[in-house]
Amino acid sequence: MGKGGISSDGEEVNMAAWLFGVNDLRIQPFKLQPLGPTDVKIRMKAVGICGSDVHYLKHMRCGDFVVKEPMVIGHECAGVVEEVGSDVKSLVVGDRVAMEPGISCWHCFHCKGGSYNLCPDMKFFATPPIHGSLADQVVHPADLCFKLPENMSLEEGAMCEPLSVGVHACRRANVGAETTVLILGAGPIGLVTMLTARAFGAPKIVLVDVDSHRLSVAKKLGADATVQVSTNTEDVSNEVAQIQEAMGVGIDLTFDCVGFSKTMTTALTATTSGGKVCLVGMGHNEMKVPLTPAAAREVDIVGIFRYKNTWPLCIDLISSGKIDVKPLITHRFGFSQDEVEKAFETSAKGSDAIKVMFNL
Amino acid sequence: MGKGGISSDGEEVNMAAWLFGVNDLRIQPFKLQPLGPTDVKIRMKAVGICGSDVHYLKHMRCGDFVVKEPMVIGHECAGVVEEVGSDVKSLVVGDRVAMEPGISCWHCFHCKGGSYNLCPDMKFFATPPIHGSLADQVVHPADLCFKLPENMSLEEGAMCEPLSVGVHACRRANVGAETTVLILGAGPIGLVTMLTARAFGAPKIVLVDVDSHRLSVAKKLGADATVQVSTNTEDVSNEVAQIQEAMGVGIDLTFDCVGFSKTMTTALTATTSGGKVCLVGMGHNEMKVPLTPAAAREVDIVGIFRYKNTWPLCIDLISSGKIDVKPLITHRFGFSQDEVEKAFETSAKGSDAIKVMFNL
Amino acid sequence: MGKGGISSDGEEVNMAAWLFGVNDLRIQPFKLQPLGPTDVKIRMKAVGICGSDVHYLKHMRCGDFVVKEPMVIGHECAGVVEEVGSDVKSLVVGDRVAMEPGISCWHCFHCKGGSYNLCPDMKFFATPPIHGSLADQVVHPADLCFKLPENMSLEEGAMCEPLSVGVHACRRANVGAETTVLILGAGPIGLVTMLTARAFGAPKIVLVDVDSHRLSVAKKLGADATVQVSTNTEDVSNEVAQIQEAMGVGIDLTFDCVGFSKTMTTALTATTSGGKVCLVGMGHNEMKVPLTPAAAREVDIVGIFRYKNTWPLCIDLISSGKIDVKPLITHRFGFSQDEVEKAFETSAKGSDAIKVMFNL
Amino acid sequence: MGKGGISSDGEEVNMAAWLFGVNDLRIQPFKLQPLGPTDVKIRMKAVGICGSDVHYLKHMRCGDFVVKEPMVIGHECAGVVEEVGSDVKSLVVGDRVAMEPGISCWHCFHCKGGSYNLCPDMKFFATPPIHGSLADQVVHPADLCFKLPENMSLEEGAMCEPLSVGVHACRRANVGAETTVLILGAGPIGLVTMLTARAFGAPKIVLVDVDSHRLSVAKKLGADATVQVSTNTEDVSNEVAQIQEAMGVGIDLTFDCVGFSKTMTTALTATTSGGKVCLVGMGHNEMKVPLTPAAAREVDIVGIFRYKNTWPLCIDLISSGKIDVKPLITHRFGFSQDEVEKAFETSAKGSDAIKVMFNL
Repeated sequence: MGKGGISSDGEEVNMAAWLFGVNDLRIQPFKLQPLGPTDVKIRMKAVGICGSDVHYLKHMRCGDFVVKEPMVIGHECAGVVEEVGSDVKSLVVGDRVAMEPGISCWHCFHCKGGSYNLCPDMKFFATPPIHGSLADQVVHPADLCFKLPENMSLEEGAMCEPLSVGVHACRRANVGAETTVLILGAGPIGLVTMLTARAFGAPKIVLVDVDSHRLSVAKKLGADATVQVSTNTEDVSNEVAQIQEAMGVGIDLTFDCVGFSKTMTTALTATTSGGKVCLVGMGHNEMKVPLTPAAAREVDIVGIFRYKNTWPLCIDLISSGKIDVKPLITHRFGFSQDEVEKAFETSAKGSDAIKVMFNL
Repeated sequence: MGKGGISSDGEEVNMAAWLFGVNDLRIQPFKLQPLGPTDVKIRMKAVGICGSDVHYLKHMRCGDFVVKEPMVIGHECAGVVEEVGSDVKSLVVGDRVAMEPGISCWHCFHCKGGSYNLCPDMKFFATPPIHGSLADQVVHPADLCFKLPENMSLEEGAMCEPLSVGVHACRRANVGAETTVLILGAGPIGLVTMLTARAFGAPKIVLVDVDSHRLSVAKKLGADATVQVSTNTEDVSNEVAQIQEAMGVGIDLTFDCVGFSKTMTTALTATTSGGKVCLVGMGHNEMKVPLTPAAAREVDIVGIFRYKNTWPLCIDLISSGKIDVKPLITHRFGFSQDEVEKAFETSAKGSDAIKVMFNL
Repeated sequence: MGKGGISSDGEEVNMAAWLFGVNDLRIQPFKLQPLGPTDVKIRMKAVGICGSDVHYLKHMRCGDFVVKEPMVIGHECAGVVEEVGSDVKSLVVGDRVAMEPGISCWHCFHCKGGSYNLCPDMKFFATPPIHGSLADQVVHPADLCFKLPENMSLEEGAMCEPLSVGVHACRRANVGAETTVLILGAGPIGLVTMLTARAFGAPKIVLVDVDSHRLSVAKKLGADATVQVSTNTEDVSNEVAQIQEAMGVGIDLTFDCVGFSKTMTTALTATTSGGKVCLVGMGHNEMKVPLTPAAAREVDIVGIFRYKNTWPLCIDLISSGKIDVKPLITHRFGFSQDEVEKAFETSAKGSDAIKVMFNL
Repeated sequence: MGKGGISSDGEEVNMAAWLFGVNDLRIQPFKLQPLGPTDVKIRMKAVGICGSDVHYLKHMRCGDFVVKEPMVIGHECAGVVEEVGSDVKSLVVGDRVAMEPGISCWHCFHCKGGSYNLCPDMKFFATPPIHGSLADQVVHPADLCFKLPENMSLEEGAMCEPLSVGVHACRRANVGAETTVLILGAGPIGLVTMLTARAFGAPKIVLVDVDSHRLSVAKKLGADATVQVSTNTEDVSNEVAQIQEAMGVGIDLTFDCVGFSKTMTTALTATTSGGKVCLVGMGHNEMKVPLTPAAAREVDIVGIFRYKNTWPLCIDLISSGKIDVKPLITHRFGFSQDEVEKAFETSAKGSDAIKVMFNL
């Protein structure tokens, strides 16, 4: 049975996908927290797999975050409101919502200053020790659940999460109608960044990857040009020349959606004087990069941490048709032990799969 | 003979300090370019030695700029107007002026957009193949010569050049009354950056260096605290802890006025989430640095190239007494072959000398 | 009796200054709301009188806010923590704190975006129907109570509120080390704006008022120059000429701390092309002003609504000695029916009184 | 004869449209200034009529600019390069170019700071005492002549001038993919502002005018909704309600392309808290407006003066098809005495004519 189980007393048992160890993911009961006055209970309907989910499954850690206790996985999600807390006015039972996965404290320096994504007390789905949302039901604050318009599907709702990364990156890098954009890496994050940059008015966008299939997808989804590169670090200067030729004009902004020493070197070298590099990908921790020549051309570097205040815009961009996220969903699975395992395998394998989605 | 020579026909011969090769600096005649309608002819009075001057003398190059033909050196300068072009209205003979050393094209994308420091056609004193200003006389555009108020000396006028680096750095990094500032490197540039940050209202400034003498100077000139560090890269995390303790509050902004892998690592690690690192020093070209963790805390990196529109502000800061540059001038020399050689030696030797100044 | 009363059962009765009608202010019992888990109970020690308090007393309204039910008045305050809620970690009993008077919802578009001062659900001391803080005791959220350092008095703590208006204005107008500042109006708000602009590095500040006494205070507190003007609107162009002469250089920024048609006309005319006018005073609702000529010189107009995230900075500015608010406190009163009436009379009368303070 | 005359010695005589007095426009010889080394000589091909041209014809003045000597009119123009100065490298004879009409000094505070549009020494076509460009030939600096791509007509080139107003307004007001836009006034400037806001990504744009024909044009050119209003100032609050309903969401930004007390009142009232009003139209000099309530909601006001650095972007927007200016050209005339008179009459008459264009 896919969705939920029935306990001995006839009550529904809430089931969730628990991460127990490396490559050990099990569907087991998940006791919901009590519904607070400003919370809602959501019946999950669509949950996507993120690269970080796969990374946790393979390594039980991601960056500095280590899974020490069994943890429910999943954080790209949408569902239907099943119960509302006593003080909730913005939602009613039956509303279809996309969910922002991080709960900030709202009272620290960062939260009050408008950078709640940097809140040190953030509780974020599937970032240990906080449980995720690949479950039949989840309890979440109402103000982090955003009602979907009728013309948006729940899968599109779940796609607001990865799209938010593109939106936050484009906002931080200040993409507009005058910004020529280079994107290194044509994986899911490179693609959502491309779609967002386009929606923000970017007049020219060039995508770069080592994988020709990914580049053909990027081309189909709207890249003005693509350049296939190697993994060989010797090739940077030749490749930069090719990339600059493909752009035709100065490169105002480069998104590095890979995060390797080589890609950052390419980014810092290719971007025009006075331009900007936005580091989105998190491939290498430490990098060997020509920082000084870039600084001496006033090429600034900005990074991003997740996102803030992006759901309303994502919903607007998708529902207005400015961004079509549907082509990014390449595989769909149900919510059973067998299907969950297959889904993660598919996502881990790579270039064919862009976004793998659970339909619960 | 100090200032100039006399030719056989009784005319003054303009003499200048020419760079002929590594450690080969000679005072020789320098033919002035004709005075254009918007130019002025300046009798040089004070010229400082910059680290880049020393670098050219030792290596005949600096960054990508290579000295291929003998070149007059010097670019931190002030003097007295001796002749004005036919269209010059802003200056009269006898005016004491500080000189901005770079002549932009004023018509390219960067110039029209307000970033004339990034002009690709910039002609800059003592940046090959353009001659510098360590000479008896120099011809320069009037709009790059800024009249000094009576309470400012010509030496203080020459100091506007290094101070401009601090001003441009503080502007780009947006230093204000709420910005806590860490400065790595207590050399001349670290010190002018400190003085400027203070004048811009920075409430707390901590200076870091490997040299205890430099730190004692920094303390005397106004640092709230100083931390002596090693050159050992293993010590970064301990040193960051010490630095953060010395600051007492989060570090909003770090100026790296050294530009080594180690200093940039310290900068990226010590700066608070959502803060900024400004790379000013140009020690290493390629750096090995933990870029990703910094980006993931939204610590942005900005670089600087020289300066723009800084002279009026520098003059205001000095003449109003908000910044005192006089203590930075540690050594003075005359303009003879012998003195010039001694001056450069003194500047090259290091930690005792902050700014070495010629009085012509 | 000044502080509190004793009920028949020997318990302290919390007394507060209630506004019952025009010129009808009475000290009567005020039942405290229950202490929530994130709240603290504060024993009030210093409460200042604001112009808006006087306005409510004289008109039972201020702007769109109308007093319909009896309301406790007062919102510039500091006190001592007497009890802390179960979840409060930032404060302990006995801490001396300055209080930010407005409680935002933290979950709306404005709050999440960092502009909590624009929150439509803001509950603000003494803005009907919310009670104020001129009382023996008040319950308030702990995160809006800011611990005072030892070198700051409780009166200085209460002064953080009016100072916050100056800080928010200077932030919105982006005052820095290069901003020449004109301030129209030398009342309490004009003066705190001057002190803040100075602390933010403003190199030159000129104050303008109709009252010579106020101008002499401004001069004593640090104005570089002052200009006395008339109330006659015919005089604007002459006065602008005088003001510009007093400044000596272009006026980058004008704060209108009065808010009359005449002052705004002066502001828009006197400010240099590309400059800014910040409208702080709220004298007239509708104004007759030469908006088009100012717009056509790209003189922008920004307004302010209260403040946000200002308390930590105010405490830092006062405790570091960069701003001295003590000279602004011209009169002190106790907390009895008689004293309260005299205090408000004093504040209403005008130019002698800058800040009238209650010591409870 | 339309284009030029022949002098007695067989040389072409350059003819131009001279403004001699109110309603007195005459085609007469116009002696070209000598071609400087950085100038080009342009054979005019397309010149549009601007509202200011009509205003000069009717009143011999516009704002503070008064026509005291006969002056050649016209400034929206494009043509073909006929001769290039000795130092010109960017253009060759035969190039089709759009012309930016204002020549700045490039050396003042504003020019060096990137705001050359505010240069006090600007020499601008048809702004007295500078002659305009409605002539057979004109001499102009090469760096203000922008080469047109093959897919752009000379008429589209001339349209870069009015479009530049929209671009500068949208830049100053920071229009982007998240900015909902209200535009008051559906004349030529309202329409180019709408087209630009759309190209800059504005998700929703509402146009308001008193004229139903203009609104139907606006609808056809892409307005999401239109609202017809009256000239009665009593109607503001009702109309604001209608406008806000038409927008459906908060109005982030209002462009007042009329500039009357009533339109500014509407703008200030309709715009959401924390939003912006950009004053573009210059209808009234002095306005009676509710400035204080808007300031107290932090609704900022920005104005514009002409434009800067807009031609490359305008050319890109038009040639890429993002903006179609052709529908704005409603009437065309030749360059003869008779046609010029008819053209100005047509432009003056109003709502039918959007842009009247000369083909020379």
